[in-house]
Amino acid sequence: MAPSREKPPIAVLTDFGYRDHYAGVMKGVIANLAPAARVIDLTHGIPPQSVIAGAIALAQSWRYFPGRTVFLVVVDPGVGTARLPIAIETRSGARFVGPDNGVLWLAAQAAGIRQMVELREARYRLDAVSSTFHGRDVFAPAAAHIFNGAALASMGPRLERIEQVSIARPEDRERTLVGRVIYVDGFGNLVTNLSREAIRQFAARFPARTLLTRIRRGAAMKILKAYGDAPRGAALATFGSFELLEVAIRDGNAAAFFRAGEGTPVTVGYSA
Amino acid sequence: MAPSREKPPIAVLTDFGYRDHYAGVMKGVIANLAPAARVIDLTHGIPPQSVIAGAIALAQSWRYFPGRTVFLVVVDPGVGTARLPIAIETRSGARFVGPDNGVLWLAAQAAGIRQMVELREARYRLDAVSSTFHGRDVFAPAAAHIFNGAALASMGPRLERIEQVSIARPEDRERTLVGRVIYVDGFGNLVTNLSREAIRQFAARFPARTLLTRIRRGAAMKILKAYGDAPRGAALATFGSFELLEVAIRDGNAAAFFRAGEGTPVTVGYSA
Amino acid sequence: MAPSREKPPIAVLTDFGYRDHYAGVMKGVIANLAPAARVIDLTHGIPPQSVIAGAIALAQSWRYFPGRTVFLVVVDPGVGTARLPIAIETRSGARFVGPDNGVLWLAAQAAGIRQMVELREARYRLDAVSSTFHGRDVFAPAAAHIFNGAALASMGPRLERIEQVSIARPEDRERTLVGRVIYVDGFGNLVTNLSREAIRQFAARFPARTLLTRIRRGAAMKILKAYGDAPRGAALATFGSFELLEVAIRDGNAAAFFRAGEGTPVTVGYSA
Repeated sequence: MAPSREKPPIAVLTDFGYRDHYAGVMKGVIANLAPAARVIDLTHGIPPQSVIAGAIALAQSWRYFPGRTVFLVVVDPGVGTARLPIAIETRSGARFVGPDNGVLWLAAQAAGIRQMVELREARYRLDAVSSTFHGRDVFAPAAAHIFNGAALASMGPRLERIEQVSIARPEDRERTLVGRVIYVDGFGNLVTNLSREAIRQFAARFPARTLLTRIRRGAAMKILKAYGDAPRGAALATFGSFELLEVAIRDGNAAAFFRAGEGTPVTVGYSA
Repeated sequence: MAPSREKPPIAVLTDFGYRDHYAGVMKGVIANLAPAARVIDLTHGIPPQSVIAGAIALAQSWRYFPGRTVFLVVVDPGVGTARLPIAIETRSGARFVGPDNGVLWLAAQAAGIRQMVELREARYRLDAVSSTFHGRDVFAPAAAHIFNGAALASMGPRLERIEQVSIARPEDRERTLVGRVIYVDGFGNLVTNLSREAIRQFAARFPARTLLTRIRRGAAMKILKAYGDAPRGAALATFGSFELLEVAIRDGNAAAFFRAGEGTPVTVGYSA
Repeated sequence: MAPSREKPPIAVLTDFGYRDHYAGVMKGVIANLAPAARVIDLTHGIPPQSVIAGAIALAQSWRYFPGRTVFLVVVDPGVGTARLPIAIETRSGARFVGPDNGVLWLAAQAAGIRQMVELREARYRLDAVSSTFHGRDVFAPAAAHIFNGAALASMGPRLERIEQVSIARPEDRERTLVGRVIYVDGFGNLVTNLSREAIRQFAARFPARTLLTRIRRGAAMKILKAYGDAPRGAALATFGSFELLEVAIRDGNAAAFFRAGEGTPVTVGYSA
C-alpha cells in the first residue's frame, strides 16, 4: 500500500496481556512524550515471553501498516540482563524498537535493514530506568522520540549484528513434505511452516494426484479453498491469510481437538 | 445524543479475541487508507463465531456512538464461502460494514435501513483478497473508504434483502412469562429477552401482587432496583442497562452458580 | 515528566474485561460528547469488583501520563446504591472520575487532592441513568465534560471526605520483616507491600549480612538486581518496576507455583 502523508502511527506489540496496567502505562509515556502520536494496539496477547510467537506476529503484520510506522515491541524475557535495547530503520520505511532477542528479526529482515543501533542515550529514556520494565523506561520513550524525529544515529552506537530467529523449513521426504505447527491462534487454528509456494513446488512432481494433509492420527484432509467450504465440525486444511497452510476445525478448535501445539508435525503428501 | 461536527470514528467489533494480531492488522489497514480516522475498539471479545452474540452487542452499542460512526463488524464463520460482504446506510446516520450473516441486522434495523450494497468493487479492497481474512482484505478497506467519503452506490450492486437474525419473544403462559437467557456477559450476568416493557404489560394483569423471577432450581427472586441492593453473594434479578431483565449474583458469577448459559429459561410470575 | 501543551488524553481503567461491549460503549459516549479527546485504554482487566486492585493499578500508572490527564475509573460493585459518583482535581493536574469506594484514593492522595465533588448535575449525565451502568450514564459523560472544560464546582456539591483504602504496611518482627502479596499480575508475578525503602531501613540494622526472601515452603531467595539474573525456571525476588519487592519465577508463573495470591505472607530476614 502507498504510504500516507499523515504522521504514521506507533503500533504496540507486547506479551503483557490485558489484565494489568503495564501496556496502558507505556501508552501514557508515549502520550506524554509524543502527544501527537496515534497509538495502535497491535496486540498485547503474545504468549508470555514467547519471542518466536512475537516475531511471527510482527512479521505477518508490519506490511499492512502505513509506510513509516514505528513498531514498539516488548517481548522481553531477558529484561534487566545484558541483552541490548535496539532500534532498526528499514528500507521499506518501517522502524522497529525492542529488545535484541530476535523478536524484531523476521519483520526487519523482510523490510530490509538499513541501520541498527543500541538505545544507549540517557536523554531518550525516562530519568530512572528500572531493571524489570524497559517497555516503560526505555522502549516507549525511544519509540516516542523516533516518532518526534530523533535520528537513530543520535540514540546510541551502531550495531553490525543483532539476534536472529528463524522458522524451520519443511523437510522434503520425497513422497511427503513434513512441516510443523509454528503458531496456534486464538481460534485454535494451527498455522504451519508449509507455505503455498513450498507446497506448489512439491506438488509439481506429482501432477495428476490430489494432495492430502495429515496431522496426528486424524484422517487425511484435502486442501480446501476456504475455511467455510468444510462442513461444521469437520477438520480441514487451507491456506491461511498469510499464505501458510493451516489446519482448522470449522466452527471448532483444532488445537484442542488434535491436542496439537507449536512443533506438532503436519505432513502433506500422497502415500498412506 | 446530538451528532458531533467532527469526523465520526470507526468502531470495530470482532470475535478475533486478544491473543492474535488479527484485529491489530485491520487497524493497520485503516491507518493506511484513512489516516485521519479515529478507531475505537468496541470489543474483540465476541465468543468465536457467535453471530447472535455479535448482533446483540452491536444492537446495544450503536446508539451511544456519534451519529455517523462507521461500524466495522467481523464475526464471520462463513468467510471464503458465498456469503456476501455488505455495507448498510441507515436513517440515523450510522453505517455498518460486515458479512451478510445477520450480525448487522438487529442494529441496522433499529437504526432504519436506507441502503444496502454488496461490497464487490475491487478498488475498495486490498489488491490480494485471501479466502480466510476478509476483515483485513475486504471489510477494513471498505470501512476506511466509507470514512473517506466513498458513496455506497459506487461500492457494488444494491441489495434488497439481507440475512436476518431475531431474538425470540418471551412466551406468555397466563400466570408466568417464560423468557430465556440471550447473552452471558463477562461478569457471568445472565441477560434475558424479558424486556421491562414486556414484564410491565404482563404485570398489569395482576396489579396487587409481587412479581417473582425464577431460574433453574434457585429460590424465587424479587426484581430489585439495583444490583447493589442485594446482599453480597445473593442472587438477584434486576433490569440491566439495556432495559432487559438480568439474573446476577452480587459480587459473584450467576452463569457458574446456576450452570446457566444462552437458552436457559428464566420465568417471571406469581405461582410456585 | 513535563506536562505537554497538547490536550491531555482520557485514560480509562475498568474491571469490565474484554469479552463485552461495555468498555466500548463508554468510549462511544466519550466520542460523542468530546470528539477531540484521545482515549487511552489503561486496562479493562482489573479483577471483577476488586476495588483494591483497581486502586493499586491507578496509583502505579497516573504519574506516567500527561499532566492533566482525565482518569475515568469504573470498578464499581456498589453501582445503583447510595455510594456517590465523584470527581477529584489534584495539585499535580491529574483529574479522577469514578465511584466513591476508595478506588481513586491511593492515586488522588499521591497526586495531592485539591477539590472533590459529587457528580450530581443532571446536565453532565446522559438523559436516562440506569441503575447498573453508571460507567456509561454518569462517569463517561463526566470525564468528557471535564475534558471539554467543565468546572468541577459546577458539577455538584463539594465533598470534604471520600472513601479511603490503604495498603497494610509490613510488620517488623525484629529479625524478619513480614509483608504480604498485594497484587498478582498477569505473568503470575507476586507484587508485595515490601518497598525498597522499608527493606533498606530494616537491612540497616544488619549491615554485614545477606537478606533472604521467603514465601510459603519455598527455599530462601536472595534479592536479585533483575528478573533475568535468575536461571530459567528458578524462583527469584527482585524489586519490580514500582519499587516494590516481587516474587517471580523466571519464564514461569509464581502465583501457580507457590499457590499464592493476594494476602500471602512474604518475609525478608536473616534467620531460618
